[in-house]
Amino acid sequence: MSQTAPTVGIVMGSDSDWPFMQDAATALQEFDVAFEADVVSAHRMPHEMIAYGSEAAERGLKVIIAGAGGAAHLPGMLASVTPLPVIGVPVPLKYLDGMDSLLSIVQMPAGVPVATVAVGAARNAGLLAVRVLAAHDADLRERMTEFQAELKEQAHAKGERLRR
Amino acid sequence: MSQTAPTVGIVMGSDSDWPFMQDAATALQEFDVAFEADVVSAHRMPHEMIAYGSEAAERGLKVIIAGAGGAAHLPGMLASVTPLPVIGVPVPLKYLDGMDSLLSIVQMPAGVPVATVAVGAARNAGLLAVRVLAAHDADLRERMTEFQAELKEQAHAKGERLRR
Amino acid sequence: MSQTAPTVGIVMGSDSDWPFMQDAATALQEFDVAFEADVVSAHRMPHEMIAYGSEAAERGLKVIIAGAGGAAHLPGMLASVTPLPVIGVPVPLKYLDGMDSLLSIVQMPAGVPVATVAVGAARNAGLLAVRVLAAHDADLRERMTEFQAELKEQAHAKGERLRR
Amino acid sequence: MSQTAPTVGIVMGSDSDWPFMQDAATALQEFDVAFEADVVSAHRMPHEMIAYGSEAAERGLKVIIAGAGGAAHLPGMLASVTPLPVIGVPVPLKYLDGMDSLLSIVQMPAGVPVATVAVGAARNAGLLAVRVLAAHDADLRERMTEFQAELKEQAHAKGERLRR
Amino acid sequence: MSQTAPTVGIVMGSDSDWPFMQDAATALQEFDVAFEADVVSAHRMPHEMIAYGSEAAERGLKVIIAGAGGAAHLPGMLASVTPLPVIGVPVPLKYLDGMDSLLSIVQMPAGVPVATVAVGAARNAGLLAVRVLAAHDADLRERMTEFQAELKEQAHAKGERLRR
Amino acid sequence: MSQTAPTVGIVMGSDSDWPFMQDAATALQEFDVAFEADVVSAHRMPHEMIAYGSEAAERGLKVIIAGAGGAAHLPGMLASVTPLPVIGVPVPLKYLDGMDSLLSIVQMPAGVPVATVAVGAARNAGLLAVRVLAAHDADLRERMTEFQAELKEQAHAKGERLRR
Amino acid sequence: MSQTAPTVGIVMGSDSDWPFMQDAATALQEFDVAFEADVVSAHRMPHEMIAYGSEAAERGLKVIIAGAGGAAHLPGMLASVTPLPVIGVPVPLKYLDGMDSLLSIVQMPAGVPVATVAVGAARNAGLLAVRVLAAHDADLRERMTEFQAELKEQAHAKGERLRR
Amino acid sequence: MSQTAPTVGIVMGSDSDWPFMQDAATALQEFDVAFEADVVSAHRMPHEMIAYGSEAAERGLKVIIAGAGGAAHLPGMLASVTPLPVIGVPVPLKYLDGMDSLLSIVQMPAGVPVATVAVGAARNAGLLAVRVLAAHDADLRERMTEFQAELKEQAHAKGERLRR
Repeated sequence: MSQTAPTVGIVMGSDSDWPFMQDAATALQEFDVAFEADVVSAHRMPHEMIAYGSEAAERGLKVIIAGAGGAAHLPGMLASVTPLPVIGVPVPLKYLDGMDSLLSIVQMPAGVPVATVAVGAARNAGLLAVRVLAAHDADLRERMTEFQAELKEQAHAKGERLRR
Repeated sequence: MSQTAPTVGIVMGSDSDWPFMQDAATALQEFDVAFEADVVSAHRMPHEMIAYGSEAAERGLKVIIAGAGGAAHLPGMLASVTPLPVIGVPVPLKYLDGMDSLLSIVQMPAGVPVATVAVGAARNAGLLAVRVLAAHDADLRERMTEFQAELKEQAHAKGERLRR
Repeated sequence: MSQTAPTVGIVMGSDSDWPFMQDAATALQEFDVAFEADVVSAHRMPHEMIAYGSEAAERGLKVIIAGAGGAAHLPGMLASVTPLPVIGVPVPLKYLDGMDSLLSIVQMPAGVPVATVAVGAARNAGLLAVRVLAAHDADLRERMTEFQAELKEQAHAKGERLRR
Repeated sequence: MSQTAPTVGIVMGSDSDWPFMQDAATALQEFDVAFEADVVSAHRMPHEMIAYGSEAAERGLKVIIAGAGGAAHLPGMLASVTPLPVIGVPVPLKYLDGMDSLLSIVQMPAGVPVATVAVGAARNAGLLAVRVLAAHDADLRERMTEFQAELKEQAHAKGERLRR
Repeated sequence: MSQTAPTVGIVMGSDSDWPFMQDAATALQEFDVAFEADVVSAHRMPHEMIAYGSEAAERGLKVIIAGAGGAAHLPGMLASVTPLPVIGVPVPLKYLDGMDSLLSIVQMPAGVPVATVAVGAARNAGLLAVRVLAAHDADLRERMTEFQAELKEQAHAKGERLRR
Repeated sequence: MSQTAPTVGIVMGSDSDWPFMQDAATALQEFDVAFEADVVSAHRMPHEMIAYGSEAAERGLKVIIAGAGGAAHLPGMLASVTPLPVIGVPVPLKYLDGMDSLLSIVQMPAGVPVATVAVGAARNAGLLAVRVLAAHDADLRERMTEFQAELKEQAHAKGERLRR
Repeated sequence: MSQTAPTVGIVMGSDSDWPFMQDAATALQEFDVAFEADVVSAHRMPHEMIAYGSEAAERGLKVIIAGAGGAAHLPGMLASVTPLPVIGVPVPLKYLDGMDSLLSIVQMPAGVPVATVAVGAARNAGLLAVRVLAAHDADLRERMTEFQAELKEQAHAKGERLRR
Repeated sequence: MSQTAPTVGIVMGSDSDWPFMQDAATALQEFDVAFEADVVSAHRMPHEMIAYGSEAAERGLKVIIAGAGGAAHLPGMLASVTPLPVIGVPVPLKYLDGMDSLLSIVQMPAGVPVATVAVGAARNAGLLAVRVLAAHDADLRERMTEFQAELKEQAHAKGERLRR
């Protein structure tokens, strides 16, 4: 994915989640944040999942982004074996519009938080990871501020078209 | 709990779930099914949880009953590391009436089923475990049939009082 | 369906449920579990439904898988007349995304459990039936363990493609 | 309950539903409609439940009122074995505020309708039964019209107090 | 619609509801029940709506079937001005899957019941109207019993195809 | 209630809604807006309800505030017979937390809007009525601006206590 | 948009909401109400959003219509900085059918009301704005009454086609 | 609150949220993280709220924790004016069990993420803030790892009591 050592790990239960999750990767690339992406299934490869989480910090990762759908256990299980912040992306399945995914991820018990974003909001997961990194990186924080200014410009331009 | 080797394991994320989960134990006792009960938290002791599930079958368990609330990952994670049938009990938390618990347990992905019962229905989890054991035990099946006949008698008696 | 005496009965309220329910059959075939499939409607043929449930155990069935949608009464009604474990599959209808089916199946009263799987998850119903049978069949349990290892291999391979 | 032959049957899964269901009885008494009340559990006495429904019409009943909670199968199962109109009352359980009861009763498949009233609305079930009887009874229809006039008077009086 | 004086009135808020509501008409035709169909909007023609309900009984109607979607007020408002039984059909709109329609119709206050059927279930509304009429018409009751027998035959035939 | 001719009408289906609805009255009093309060039930006095709405504008009312619960038809029905803005307050009932009330009020069809406020938010209904009046009354608008400044002061003071 | 000074401001978070929101503009045009339309994003241009709301009254606006989806903060934030009535339109997103948008807009805290209309109901937002203006404009009120009469005529005509 | 310059800001819309939000403070204290707490209401003091967010980073804060209920706009609005990570705590109100709060906070549009925790889970918000800080602080990360080990010990001890 990227050449420098990755600071963000993007994981998902199946490669079928990639069309959703790649928006997280794109957001990270826009900020030149090095990342890795992998399939780490809580239910199909539980031992590897536990290992992934347990080793993430010592491997140099600063943030984990985990996407999952339905009874979505991946973000919460990773959070239980790492001290790093874990960002959960509720992936919507065919039924229930992602409400099951959202509740399975966000409703974590006291002691083990998961930073949850909107249903299907992988791009925001990437941006949240950037903010976490930026909390200790003035340059990155500056770029996030510029990014927010660009959002404003784009919104302005859209209003321009509407007002004409 | 019981002297003969347990065939059913009742586990929960915290001993605060015991008031809910002991109904499962009571149901098993009514059918003289030996069981064990333990706190096995997916989020607070993930390695032990994985170990519990991985060793359950070889330790002689035939069924696992797991209760959990909120982002309830225990039943599904156990199901991912054991070939045994896992029965999930959605424990209701203070908010959302157990809907989060229910969806977190029942909406498992293809490949890893959890046999889910009603919100707070630990007694039914115990009775379902008995049915699973009874599938290969004519005596136990006979007792379940008798139990169902008793349910009928009790319902009859209630109608009697109402009709008077 | 299969030549040896069936140990699993797959029933549904209408043949229009078959596209959903045949995934249960496929899962059983993968484990060489003999099964039968039939239309047994709680609302359109209640007497036959009661008869099916009442005779299932003596006919040699060990597990019943029942799929139904909307006000889904089939799994629960069968569970009330058999001592066997009944697995309920909530079939989603055109509206409400299967939430009505799920609640109608899972929220059974104390005394009569139904082992409920995810909305539309007929494959998992088949796999759960295999686990129930495997609880007393070391060979089948071994095959379930192998199946789980294969799930892991497949997930691994998917990650491989993603990591490249 | 009443001396003349009952024309309405009020049934429920357990006598614990009686505190809810007796409002139906009270409404019928206000209109001098003879009724019977009984415990008829779909899940605990399925054969008797089927028999109750099958014989209701020939026993002279014109309407059946059935209350049930959770996976509420009683109204729908009765409707499947009688040609009479069946009125379903969703009884709320401890969790989910009766939403499970409502969906389990109202979402019946094509062919077998249940006339569903509001969650916990046993009084309205009684009044609906009166309306069904009144459809062919000019006297009763007149009394229902008077009853509606009284509702108006009471509402008026309440406004009076508020306006003062 | 039919030549003899109609005994059932089918009304809806807009002719755009007709594709849903005509299933009610078809069901009534199968039982040779005379009916009328009309657009009677609670929100667009409130005075006419009140008049329709107020005059329904004296015009010879025995049952009113009312379909409405969203904030569905038609069935409940008609029920408030007629002593006849009113059957409400929750018509699903583009969003919310008919849950708004269902709650707006079924959750009527004490005193004014609406006999509610499933979301979009106009056919069942027609069949429920037949049952109401059949409560005092032995012939019609007999035909409903035959209809139920046919449902059974059809379900049987479907099973036949599945078993082959 | 107030001596000058009322410009706001506060109506509700029953005086049991008054404990909720009087917050609307209090808000109006704080702004010296003259109002009237009455019981106007859509389901128990439909003709009077229609009359109330039809005559409201010519009687000098500028805004109607209507509170109702469950299948809450009062706000929408009033909106259908008056050209005035109608503000709907979803009153929560014992079950379903006011979700039925909210959807019954807010989901009005195209052509007949209801200005809906939060579940149980009668105070905000009063304040919204003031804003509607203030749209054409510079004095009242000034007072609303002052009111908002006071809200800020109060919030400030609360922060003060927290910061100490 | 219109030449006379606008009295209604229609704002939305993105021009992608315009297909929804233009129905509000159309409704205003039908009543010859001058309006302006703009993109004012709570999250992408917060300072401009605050400015827009703060200056709206002195710029001559009487009503603000704000459409937003998901975590929809625009209507409520505008209401917090203007004394004018703010009408909120819940725009449905890809998932959750607008339920998130509805709750984010309607559930405002005491002190700051938003007049909420149905999910996607921009046309009704426009009509509600007309009613607010009409509260102090006899001519406009007359036209709203005529508009309601036309709605009746159209509904009548639809019934005509159905009755034939 | 604490003497060293605060790195975490805990804000809420009213001091009535403090009983919920102080669990965040307690968690931070356990890890010796300096914080400040304040009332910053999106709806009652919007300008101050914008100022708080805009200045947070330059004032030295690294993370903002914002709690809000109902139409909960505080976390999202702060996120729109700061490049820092914002953690949102859905505070449950009297009705709807915090579902409105949750959706209002988590469903943020692309570009402006909020790290959402469970309904009422202020403690987890505090722990998530610690994890964010720990991403760049090996000592703090070590303490989080120890904290997780303690959670395990406590869970173990609870199991001990259960097993006896």
